[in-house]
Amino acid sequence: MLKTEPTLNDIRQSSARIRPHAHWTPILRCHSLDEMVGATLFFKCENFQKVGAFKFRGACNAVVSLTDKEASRGVATHSSGNHAQALALAARMRGIPATIVMPSNAPEVKKAAVAGYGGEIVSCEPTLAAREETLARVVEKSRAVMIHPYNNYDVIAGQGTAALEFLEDIPDLDAILVPVGGGGLLSGTLIAAKGVKPSIMVIAAEPEGADDAYRSWKAGEIIPMVGPKTVADGLLTSLGDKTFPVIQRLVDEIVTVSDEATLKAMRLIWERVKLVVEPSGAVPLGMLLEQKIDLCGKKIGIILSGGNVDLSRFFANT
Amino acid sequence: MLKTEPTLNDIRQSSARIRPHAHWTPILRCHSLDEMVGATLFFKCENFQKVGAFKFRGACNAVVSLTDKEASRGVATHSSGNHAQALALAARMRGIPATIVMPSNAPEVKKAAVAGYGGEIVSCEPTLAAREETLARVVEKSRAVMIHPYNNYDVIAGQGTAALEFLEDIPDLDAILVPVGGGGLLSGTLIAAKGVKPSIMVIAAEPEGADDAYRSWKAGEIIPMVGPKTVADGLLTSLGDKTFPVIQRLVDEIVTVSDEATLKAMRLIWERVKLVVEPSGAVPLGMLLEQKIDLCGKKIGIILSGGNVDLSRFFANT
Repeated sequence: MLKTEPTLNDIRQSSARIRPHAHWTPILRCHSLDEMVGATLFFKCENFQKVGAFKFRGACNAVVSLTDKEASRGVATHSSGNHAQALALAARMRGIPATIVMPSNAPEVKKAAVAGYGGEIVSCEPTLAAREETLARVVEKSRAVMIHPYNNYDVIAGQGTAALEFLEDIPDLDAILVPVGGGGLLSGTLIAAKGVKPSIMVIAAEPEGADDAYRSWKAGEIIPMVGPKTVADGLLTSLGDKTFPVIQRLVDEIVTVSDEATLKAMRLIWERVKLVVEPSGAVPLGMLLEQKIDLCGKKIGIILSGGNVDLSRFFANT
Repeated sequence: MLKTEPTLNDIRQSSARIRPHAHWTPILRCHSLDEMVGATLFFKCENFQKVGAFKFRGACNAVVSLTDKEASRGVATHSSGNHAQALALAARMRGIPATIVMPSNAPEVKKAAVAGYGGEIVSCEPTLAAREETLARVVEKSRAVMIHPYNNYDVIAGQGTAALEFLEDIPDLDAILVPVGGGGLLSGTLIAAKGVKPSIMVIAAEPEGADDAYRSWKAGEIIPMVGPKTVADGLLTSLGDKTFPVIQRLVDEIVTVSDEATLKAMRLIWERVKLVVEPSGAVPLGMLLEQKIDLCGKKIGIILSGGNVDLSRFFANT
């Protein structure tokens, strides 16, 4: 396990480590969206990643990095989102138990997905305090290794592998745009992309209604998010003390995006690119639609972070 | 223009002809669907094709095959579906006019798409008779070359290029599954796939509520569809006299599929493969879900024919 902030070399090693387990995801282009935003867009399809989101990279790297002795105790986390499924699958691949603390109000479909990957679910009250207490009890009893969704150096290194692949496939990108929630993907991307290509711009897109990264970056200290309100349900969390310093040091820009623009972008990705992406994955394109930053004529890489959406509304009458 | 049924060689030539204009579409896999159906599935993503459907292949081949003299008169068709957009775009690429006869009740979004590709829309009453009469008037006046959506040898040859790419990328496929409406994709696939690999099975999937291909195949003569009723809105048409003989001679099986299975398949493709496909494109997977044919353990190629869906229900409150 990494004790200090990952370097480019750590991310390269993570990339080799997860290669047998994770997908090297494809990159898609879309002429009509290029015309619409006046730039050349490259979409890195992390919605095609295992469990449907980049989160598998970090969870997989963290699980594979454990010594056999550590691994024998199993892993644990609290999450109601993609990290829960990612950790459950990564643990199953290594043949070790994963305990996932989930709030009692988590959607049945998410619980079923975690259980489907062999994760053991421990239910708790739907508050952050209850989640943390319950997880602490689980870890105390089982001695399982706690794998935080983003505030963990091995997770950060794993998330950085997406940018590494991106620049290997498309070396002449001018910028990479990523959504930011807890900052795992952003900090990993920053270390990887700036390491490989110092001139590249890395720009974070954050929902207006969960703008703690923007405010923390401006203030120079972590300002936790209180009462986030956005359709981008993967980006509700606050930065951590392991992600913030990287972001503070390396990010070119953090731009907030309205939910309206995010939903417009999501619809465009479904309609034009024919990809199912979740709202969180559409925030960077939403940023381009709002024209809050000038990237005209540039080659822009967008990490489509995930594709896990509840489709019951669309298929309601079927 | 081809005067007789295309051969494998004609399809090979079509493939070279459309290469500068059409996408060589990628093939995706999905582990969880493999497990579900007990076979190894390969999805050929024609939803990523230009205009979002395989129809561009046929329209493009037909338009590019015109002599300069023919082309100078422009092209025309009647269609409210993907062929309308495909022909409009192919014509624009060649710099010639396209006139598309569309029923007055065609969705605004489809009219807008055709107009967006530079097609001239002529509106008519929403009956087949009115469509054909209106088109005949257009053609008489403009001397435009009429490009039928499927009952046209150049169109059939163009549609066959998808199977050619499929077998070049995955030579050891045991079977290819395609949806059947008018039979353009099916007949092109049959000539291409059986030509390249005589041992391959080609199986057509048809909605129960538009089962004229199944009944025609059984009867040995074309039985036109009267009052089709299915969610697969791209498969309402009847076989033509240029597609039926190929199908009659070469198809291994035509299997009918319930709308229930098609919608279940469509949802699975959205949820698991993260691809937006239209109902017509999901019919072959629906066939596998219904287990009406035993392909257990086989390597199965599925042509995801298109991805043009009206998403307004999903995005209704946004």
